Amino acid sequence: MSNVLAKAQDAKNASVKLATLTTEQKNMALNAIADAVWRNRLPIMHANKKDLTETERLLSKGEIKEAVIQRLKLDTAKITDIVEMIRSVAGLDDPIGKTQYAVELDDGLELYRVSSPIGVVGVVFESRPDALPQIASLCLKSGNAVLMKGGSEAKYSNEALFKIIKDASEDADVPEGWIQLLESRDDVARLLELNNHVNLIIPRGSNRFVEYIMSHTKIPVLGHSEGVCHIYIDRDADVDKAVEVCLDSKIQYPSVCNALDAILVHKDIAGVFLPRMVGKYSEAGVEVRGCSRTVALLGDAVKRASKSDWGYEYLDYKVAVKVVDSYDEAINHINGYGSHHTDAIMTEDTETAMTFMKSVDSASVFWNASTRFSDGYRYGLGAEVGISTGKIHARGPTGLEGLTIYKYYLVGSGQIVASYVGENAKKFTHKKLDKGWLEGIKR
Amino acid sequence: MSNVLAKAQDAKNASVKLATLTTEQKNMALNAIADAVWRNRLPIMHANKKDLTETERLLSKGEIKEAVIQRLKLDTAKITDIVEMIRSVAGLDDPIGKTQYAVELDDGLELYRVSSPIGVVGVVFESRPDALPQIASLCLKSGNAVLMKGGSEAKYSNEALFKIIKDASEDADVPEGWIQLLESRDDVARLLELNNHVNLIIPRGSNRFVEYIMSHTKIPVLGHSEGVCHIYIDRDADVDKAVEVCLDSKIQYPSVCNALDAILVHKDIAGVFLPRMVGKYSEAGVEVRGCSRTVALLGDAVKRASKSDWGYEYLDYKVAVKVVDSYDEAINHINGYGSHHTDAIMTEDTETAMTFMKSVDSASVFWNASTRFSDGYRYGLGAEVGISTGKIHARGPTGLEGLTIYKYYLVGSGQIVASYVGENAKKFTHKKLDKGWLEGIKR
Repeated sequence: MSNVLAKAQDAKNASVKLATLTTEQKNMALNAIADAVWRNRLPIMHANKKDLTETERLLSKGEIKEAVIQRLKLDTAKITDIVEMIRSVAGLDDPIGKTQYAVELDDGLELYRVSSPIGVVGVVFESRPDALPQIASLCLKSGNAVLMKGGSEAKYSNEALFKIIKDASEDADVPEGWIQLLESRDDVARLLELNNHVNLIIPRGSNRFVEYIMSHTKIPVLGHSEGVCHIYIDRDADVDKAVEVCLDSKIQYPSVCNALDAILVHKDIAGVFLPRMVGKYSEAGVEVRGCSRTVALLGDAVKRASKSDWGYEYLDYKVAVKVVDSYDEAINHINGYGSHHTDAIMTEDTETAMTFMKSVDSASVFWNASTRFSDGYRYGLGAEVGISTGKIHARGPTGLEGLTIYKYYLVGSGQIVASYVGENAKKFTHKKLDKGWLEGIKR
Repeated sequence: MSNVLAKAQDAKNASVKLATLTTEQKNMALNAIADAVWRNRLPIMHANKKDLTETERLLSKGEIKEAVIQRLKLDTAKITDIVEMIRSVAGLDDPIGKTQYAVELDDGLELYRVSSPIGVVGVVFESRPDALPQIASLCLKSGNAVLMKGGSEAKYSNEALFKIIKDASEDADVPEGWIQLLESRDDVARLLELNNHVNLIIPRGSNRFVEYIMSHTKIPVLGHSEGVCHIYIDRDADVDKAVEVCLDSKIQYPSVCNALDAILVHKDIAGVFLPRMVGKYSEAGVEVRGCSRTVALLGDAVKRASKSDWGYEYLDYKVAVKVVDSYDEAINHINGYGSHHTDAIMTEDTETAMTFMKSVDSASVFWNASTRFSDGYRYGLGAEVGISTGKIHARGPTGLEGLTIYKYYLVGSGQIVASYVGENAKKFTHKKLDKGWLEGIKR
């Protein structure tokens, strides 16, 4: 187990040098990794074969689902995708070294706030062999050292990919030790204790798993608990649009966090909207669970919702429906039962939309659009590091920026604080500067 | 104790409406608070008198220090300062509602990332009656509800100020319950458990206190552990500047976190720099604790440092000195023994300065300037919420921005995700937009 401490120490040491790499050095290393993955596609597929053999044994015993095999399998097409993904990360804007704030404190005394790597990141992820190269690429691009633990079904594939990435990057002058692979659940438990070495934990996987991580570490967690998503159909909604959006939000991909779980309908429009909506859901095989007023309106076409239906993430062809008296009731229901992930309003009234969006305390608030748009790729964030349901540091779909923090660079020529206090104190100018930190330093 | 839960629930309810207040509403409320504090200066000083009487009793028993009385005492001048501080917060830029990212996903489907309040903030602070109005003003300006617990020596002053601020703000239409006062240490222990109601804890006070908070809550903490500050005197330093900066960093105000604790000197300049530096320190009454090479150079003028001197925050007229062989050794020493607060280099060589600043993993890295500049006011951040030694969310001196997060507003006209997948899929345009979210919504 102290093996994990040694790995974390190595990663921490490497992180110091990693923070000094230029964009060109990082991109060259990423391209070298892409080349190496492609060059080694046969050994990678060979390792993956070993994982598949073992996993098929479990499948035959009924211990896992067929979908696991599909996710696990690496063929030439998937390796091509991986190689392209790594090259696309090389093509992204460098999130490090950006001047966020530049101010002259006094003549010749200049302050720059500059985006910087966080340091050492621990990532625990699902059994998808493409996850490892994706995480490694994003961490390298953002100058962070990384400790990774992948799903055990992908053990051999991950080992092969890890070794290739490690060797190719270190050959390309990325500091030795920047990438580390953990091997067991015990390793993860140990990782969670290393709050002096690890600056951020990113867990990927089931809600239960993420909550386990969150309650077992002092290290900040960028994690995602669940997505209980609502759509409120306002009195002033366009019914055609509302039906289309609620259908898409539910059935376009029901097993994911941004799928719809509950519809709240204003009482004045329920009589028009609900019969059409429930007809559409019925055609699509969606079970509707309604409140008493919904049942009164639609009778046998819906099941009666129980208390546990409110605030429940179905991940399935099921949806809850509640008739409300006002948008205030809808807002309170969402803030009380929701999970602060993604919630939408359907209305043609700008003021109502505005109040709803300001008042609903969710990472993503939508007006007249499907909840399924809530996703880093669709948001144009380039690459998704994760989805955060926290309200500190990063919220919602999180791109490379979520792997950065900043530091303050103060550039002087011998200034002392005593000159700025007491009688005859010099005054701070606090004049915004129109230049970046590199220009400021290489003056 | 469940009293605290009720207060937190009230604060959470208020936070929803607080997030919808306009800048004008918040500023009007702040000015109303300033007026009310001034109008009630006599009752405030009367309450303060009760605190002083009690505290003087403790002083006479030797249980507290004289400085506590000085910090505690409110007179007309201090109340004038408080009133001016509140008005200055009204004058600050509103940190909420700023568009950080605006992108068209497709024609008529626009995404805006907008700065938003965090929600409910818990602040535990020292016995300074001016702290309460400062924290309340900053939270109101940033649209956050706040649960506050002040030092017990200021109990009556805090109760008086709290009531005045609560009444004046609620009269000015700030949602009832947005501000709450906790009363005991038990209340604080209960607060730390309320991770479903409280989004951020800001502890102010001693290192030990902050560390206690950090290790007793799942709620994210914006806190500040300690400041072990270093200055590295490079081979290419200007000795005059180096002596001045090291003197100021140590003696300008030795009892604070950004005061100097250890000097690292390059061996090639130690023979010139150290005798002059130690002479100056000796005049100023600073005790120097040197490594073996320092002692060899200076003899009886310095004490021999023990192992515990490295990485120690003196908060006193003491400083450790170590001779190093290279700037690499200095960087490693600082990253190993420092507290990632503020560290400086004295050199005339740009490349060395650059490498040092990139490699030292501290919130503030200085080149040729006193460590004492590390402070939100001097940085021009307007008002300091706290100093963070964490690397997530906020780092270093933290202004109002540290009390904000963001949310994503997606504005559509009935778009569904199904249109963007499969055959004939529409493509996302991901075109940067040149407008703010309000303009986008009120189209």
